[in-house]
Amino acid sequence: MKIKRSERLVDLTYYLITHPFEIVSLTYFSDRFQAAKSSVSEDLAIIKKRFESQKIGKLETIPGASGGARFIPRLAKEDQEVMVQDLIDEINHTERLLPGGFIYLSDILGNPKWLQVIGKVIANQYLDQDIDTVMTVATSGIAVAQSVASYLNVPFKIVTRDPKVTEGSTVSVNYVSGASGQRVEKMELSRRSLEEGTNVLVVDDFIRSGGTIEGMRSLLAEFKANLIGSAVVVENLVGKSDKPKDYQTLISVAQIDEDQKTIEFALGSLFDS
Amino acid sequence: MKIKRSERLVDLTYYLITHPFEIVSLTYFSDRFQAAKSSVSEDLAIIKKRFESQKIGKLETIPGASGGARFIPRLAKEDQEVMVQDLIDEINHTERLLPGGFIYLSDILGNPKWLQVIGKVIANQYLDQDIDTVMTVATSGIAVAQSVASYLNVPFKIVTRDPKVTEGSTVSVNYVSGASGQRVEKMELSRRSLEEGTNVLVVDDFIRSGGTIEGMRSLLAEFKANLIGSAVVVENLVGKSDKPKDYQTLISVAQIDEDQKTIEFALGSLFDS
Repeated sequence: MKIKRSERLVDLTYYLITHPFEIVSLTYFSDRFQAAKSSVSEDLAIIKKRFESQKIGKLETIPGASGGARFIPRLAKEDQEVMVQDLIDEINHTERLLPGGFIYLSDILGNPKWLQVIGKVIANQYLDQDIDTVMTVATSGIAVAQSVASYLNVPFKIVTRDPKVTEGSTVSVNYVSGASGQRVEKMELSRRSLEEGTNVLVVDDFIRSGGTIEGMRSLLAEFKANLIGSAVVVENLVGKSDKPKDYQTLISVAQIDEDQKTIEFALGSLFDS
Repeated sequence: MKIKRSERLVDLTYYLITHPFEIVSLTYFSDRFQAAKSSVSEDLAIIKKRFESQKIGKLETIPGASGGARFIPRLAKEDQEVMVQDLIDEINHTERLLPGGFIYLSDILGNPKWLQVIGKVIANQYLDQDIDTVMTVATSGIAVAQSVASYLNVPFKIVTRDPKVTEGSTVSVNYVSGASGQRVEKMELSRRSLEEGTNVLVVDDFIRSGGTIEGMRSLLAEFKANLIGSAVVVENLVGKSDKPKDYQTLISVAQIDEDQKTIEFALGSLFDS
């Protein structure tokens, strides 16, 4: 059955959005729609223009007979900034400070709307870096990892702090936890989770001492996997450190009011020019 | 600037898909597009037809001056069955059996594609039940909860087994863990997570003895929240039980080969006619 342009546009838009990074070949769609390749090409040009003007992302076109297009959820830096600033406005001036420099973020990390913002912006920093998998540590980083992974269209792996019987055999490392380096803990990952040479993006919801990120780094070394980058949603460094930071942050803490238990948040290192 | 039908269709399709359950008013879109309401109405009719024929979901139209449309990711039962059968084909005949009747599922639960299937099908059972929030227990249920919640467009809450300092004050209950009822464990939820009277859907990745689901039930009672339903991805009951099941399953275990460590999976109770 022949399908009209208006109908093709609905199908194509849906397909592209739900298959980021996958190349959509002109041949596949011209067969599916029983339409000339030139018509499908024109459809894609319309979609490309709208995706850019609506800040949905880029449609990259691949020329030639075996050509097609793929949707990359790429956003301009200033649009990312607007999205993260919205999130900051949401969490500023609310009671979020917990004992020990921790910050209550469970509501944000359990809200699909904010997870989309977080996932999209973190993914945007690594769109061209050939990430094979996203990795995080349980529990609170999982939602972040899932969202980032869905925009990169790759799987994600969960490192756990307690032995989980549902994982099968695991590889573990020790790491230093806590701001003053007072505790040594263990983290582990299922042995069959990661192959040698995998390109890994490490993400987490919160960083305080950097010990967790450090632990994931040594775990990746055990697996002979490549750490491509690390990104964290909120940073609240306890104590000053002169060590250069080898992770990016979406949001940092600008000021803390211990009496009101409120915190003022600001754009993180991702937005440093 | 006036926007053509072809362009409007791209924008509308994107907007509807990324905002399930939200009512899109004709007024809002006729202003945004500088188009007559009747034109936007026709756009929505085209989208409605394609969403149904492509099994994307239903577009419910609300008549009248204050009318509009909302996208419900509703699928026919037979389409859900095809999707889950694909997942079963993926996991059948692979080495997944772990000691104690556990099953390795981390690869599936870390794959955005399969999480979409799981989320969409579980959400479909509760589209008309006014769910306010999805709840799960850490760690492995989180990805399931996030996916289900995104299709229902509601937040999700994570119950933890170990005290988490990032949660603030919590409410905890004890529950019996393990197939032969040999261990009593504790699970807790951040006090500010749930309000009285909230309608909750409980989800989990795996059920073996039912103790975890039972624990979540008592936790909800503590919060005076309403348990609307429970759904689990894979069920592997250890030992026979005559107790009626008060949860639904996507996939059940049909046969276990202890030597080969393989399991044969089948459609779960969700698909009982």
